[in-house]
Amino acid sequence: MMATLYGVGIGPGDPELLTLKAARIVGAVPVVAYFCKAGRPGHARTIAAPHLNPAAAHLRLEYPFTIEVPVGDPRYLIEIGRFYDAAAEQVGAELDQGRDVAVICEGDPFFYGSFMYLYDRLRDRFPTEVIPGITGMGGCWTRAGSPITHGDDVLTVLPGTLGAEAMAARLAGADAAVIMKVGRNLPKIRAALQDAGLLTRAIYVERGTMADEAIRPLAAVEGDDAPYFALILVPGRQRPR
Amino acid sequence: MMATLYGVGIGPGDPELLTLKAARIVGAVPVVAYFCKAGRPGHARTIAAPHLNPAAAHLRLEYPFTIEVPVGDPRYLIEIGRFYDAAAEQVGAELDQGRDVAVICEGDPFFYGSFMYLYDRLRDRFPTEVIPGITGMGGCWTRAGSPITHGDDVLTVLPGTLGAEAMAARLAGADAAVIMKVGRNLPKIRAALQDAGLLTRAIYVERGTMADEAIRPLAAVEGDDAPYFALILVPGRQRPR
Ligand SMILES: C[S@@+](CC[C@H](N)C(=O)[O-])C[C@H]1O[C@@H](n2cnc3c(N)ncnc32)[C@H](O)[C@@H]1O
Ligand SMILES: C[S@@+](CC[C@H](N)C(=O)[O-])C[C@H]1O[C@@H](n2cnc3c(N)ncnc32)[C@H](O)[C@@H]1O
Repeated sequence: MMATLYGVGIGPGDPELLTLKAARIVGAVPVVAYFCKAGRPGHARTIAAPHLNPAAAHLRLEYPFTIEVPVGDPRYLIEIGRFYDAAAEQVGAELDQGRDVAVICEGDPFFYGSFMYLYDRLRDRFPTEVIPGITGMGGCWTRAGSPITHGDDVLTVLPGTLGAEAMAARLAGADAAVIMKVGRNLPKIRAALQDAGLLTRAIYVERGTMADEAIRPLAAVEGDDAPYFALILVPGRQRPR
Repeated sequence: MMATLYGVGIGPGDPELLTLKAARIVGAVPVVAYFCKAGRPGHARTIAAPHLNPAAAHLRLEYPFTIEVPVGDPRYLIEIGRFYDAAAEQVGAELDQGRDVAVICEGDPFFYGSFMYLYDRLRDRFPTEVIPGITGMGGCWTRAGSPITHGDDVLTVLPGTLGAEAMAARLAGADAAVIMKVGRNLPKIRAALQDAGLLTRAIYVERGTMADEAIRPLAAVEGDDAPYFALILVPGRQRPR
């Protein structure tokens, strides 16, 4: 029997928002792997901690410092490609030894997740199973008490890393929107929402479903930076009840 | 202590894709409520069955036959509004007696769900808690083995009920797309995807994560109708690895 690669969505932060299937798998596998920064515990590991097999080996997939080169820089693609190659080697080596590996992923593995790069590299070599997770946006609209789409609303999900013009074009005419990866893109996002006439409807959610969650109208958020776990919701049109 | 209204997302179909929190709540509440058609068990109830408190009372919220009038017809809004008023009355009567009620919802309650109409009517009268669920689309892209968004892809989610022109306009220039509520809209959706040059990338998923799931390229799907649980995925652009 070949070992299995699992990509396990562990949800938005609240450790009770794992699925039963995710909890079963991370509680049983001999190896748990996760992306993290050097010297940090890793977001996914922190979220999943109460459910991990206490005897599991931990395989840390540490982002190299060099990928601090800007995403636009041609060196970035080369560096990040090499990093994912090396990470896939590490995970593949465990699988080759017959040990199942669960790569634990914030939110859902197939929704803007780094797991996809391991999946591309390993899916043809090993049996692979992916477990969907509650997305960060799903956790956030729930906690904000804001139904996101009604009836025939169209939902547009966009990363804050988009250029200002592309962002404004995508937001014009959106019924409902979610903007991910806020961070230093906050001023650009604010301007694009203002141009699209959506600023007053926008809700800022930081660390949704986590213990130190913060939720406010975007118009009340000061400063030009946001933490990693932050996104913006523009709930859809309300219907006649 | 006032009773609590829970809106509980029960995921896309696989009963192991409930969250730990959802399973805890539906296993404990004295009253479980769900939307259903007359004479049918109810989709949400079928999915959640293994986890429901066996002693719970079931409150069926049966769609009236009269809402078979087309959505565009002005009578529709009146009929459906009256139906939700009556459903909110039924649920409110249980809560008034001090019994917690869990309204179980396919997928996520705040994502194109009927629960929102109960929430609008009851949230000011009773303590209310919503539990996010794995969406149908999340279950479907997982089972299709298709990461949906990479890097700076924009995701557009649209209901198949949109008019042909609006649908074509939304699809033009989409990186990744999900089309919900396929049903009798299949021919219109096929034409819109063809116009947008996306037909060859489109994947059809029926009853994703359920025992009788079916997944095929949309181009290989014949006929002009699809079941209730069907959606279409257009995965995002693949990146250089
Ligand atoms: C690389 S993406 C990964 C998304 C993840 N796979 C998912 O399904 O949500 C990271 C972004 O997700 C958003 N995010 C994820 N979880 C969040 C949370 N609990 N609160 C706020 N934002 C969150 C943030 O915008 C963050 O920059
Ligand atoms: C009224 S919407 C409810 C969506 C639900 N609240 C969610 O989060 O997915 C119903 C539509 O969801 C889609 N859907 C939900 N679950 C699905 C599944 N398991 N497989 C395919 N489509 C599904 C279908 O397009 C269906 O017409």
